[in-house]
Amino acid sequence: MSKGEDSRKEIVASALAMASEVGLEGVTIGALAERTGRSKSGLFAHFGSKEELQIAILDEAVDRFVSLVVSPALKEKRGLPRVRALFERWLAWARADFMPGGCIFMAATVELDDRPGPTRDRLVSSEKDWLGVLSGAAKIAVDEGHFRPDLDCDQFAFELYAIAHGYHTLARLFRDRASEKRARAAFDRLLRDATISTETRPSARPSAKHH
Amino acid sequence: MSKGEDSRKEIVASALAMASEVGLEGVTIGALAERTGRSKSGLFAHFGSKEELQIAILDEAVDRFVSLVVSPALKEKRGLPRVRALFERWLAWARADFMPGGCIFMAATVELDDRPGPTRDRLVSSEKDWLGVLSGAAKIAVDEGHFRPDLDCDQFAFELYAIAHGYHTLARLFRDRASEKRARAAFDRLLRDATISTETRPSARPSAKHH
Repeated sequence: MSKGEDSRKEIVASALAMASEVGLEGVTIGALAERTGRSKSGLFAHFGSKEELQIAILDEAVDRFVSLVVSPALKEKRGLPRVRALFERWLAWARADFMPGGCIFMAATVELDDRPGPTRDRLVSSEKDWLGVLSGAAKIAVDEGHFRPDLDCDQFAFELYAIAHGYHTLARLFRDRASEKRARAAFDRLLRDATISTETRPSARPSAKHH
Repeated sequence: MSKGEDSRKEIVASALAMASEVGLEGVTIGALAERTGRSKSGLFAHFGSKEELQIAILDEAVDRFVSLVVSPALKEKRGLPRVRALFERWLAWARADFMPGGCIFMAATVELDDRPGPTRDRLVSSEKDWLGVLSGAAKIAVDEGHFRPDLDCDQFAFELYAIAHGYHTLARLFRDRASEKRARAAFDRLLRDATISTETRPSARPSAKHH
């Protein structure tokens, strides 16, 4: 890695920590210069604009998310073990030291939802990728026979996403341990419904009983 | 209502709209003066500090939430109809015209989670109240015989909260209709699990079969 790439990486790491605390919009070139002890012109050499800097922050966050959450989970056995690993690692993600203010994606979502532009596009794309990973992991669990064949894998992904968001929100707000317990209980219920056969469920159509 | 109270109400309404777009921290006395066409000294007469203004915004949001979501739901029949009304009205809440940037509580949560102080305390208190309303509504549904007697009502409240948060987040980010459909499906699954007897569920202990 060249010295220029090295220092760029250092700057982006500082910017990511800062963004998790004050939001992407708070990471101005000026504020970042102050935090890193660098000159504004030096930062402009790396990032031509605030927008370029914001996208660099999101790219860095995605890289870290992949290496801390997605890649290790892919080393787990296909199916249920991998789904569990994705969930567990996602819960741990928002407590990472390099994001003292919590999950950067959640912060960015609230910030950017009504601000069209390349930064928002980058975020939408990464959130869709992530839901795709969750849905894909559920599909593999179906193929492996761990989940029922008629499972709606996109619905499963939405619900897993909702549970983790509820957890990240309430755990940070209430600073309690109960939120984690509740998130795990919700996840267990999600797995239970994904696992059991529809034939044995009271909500199944009566005709299913004759199979 | 006195003229002073009237104009205070108008200012807080503008401040609420603004906060939903740029966050509570973005609503400075200066920015609000510009938006409302009033003098900064005029605003200071109503709100001694930025913090006082932020708490006034949250108080106004709570008032509106109660009158748009909680109160109408309390007019529904006790039990399941009331739980359904709370959920439906909560989904509609984040699309209210007076919050062009989406739900103020979600924005405030991301913003304030690591900023101790009276504004954060106000938010924590209102979120706890809301979870209490949801849990209480579930408890009534148990008492009315709509939900199973062994339902963990706080867990039910957490899961309902998570579903609505997932919906508010993804609907605003993806600007699609699928998120609403998914939120409703997740809510149906939550109701189904709250309604059915544990004795008929495959996850119940084997001994339960002999009851």
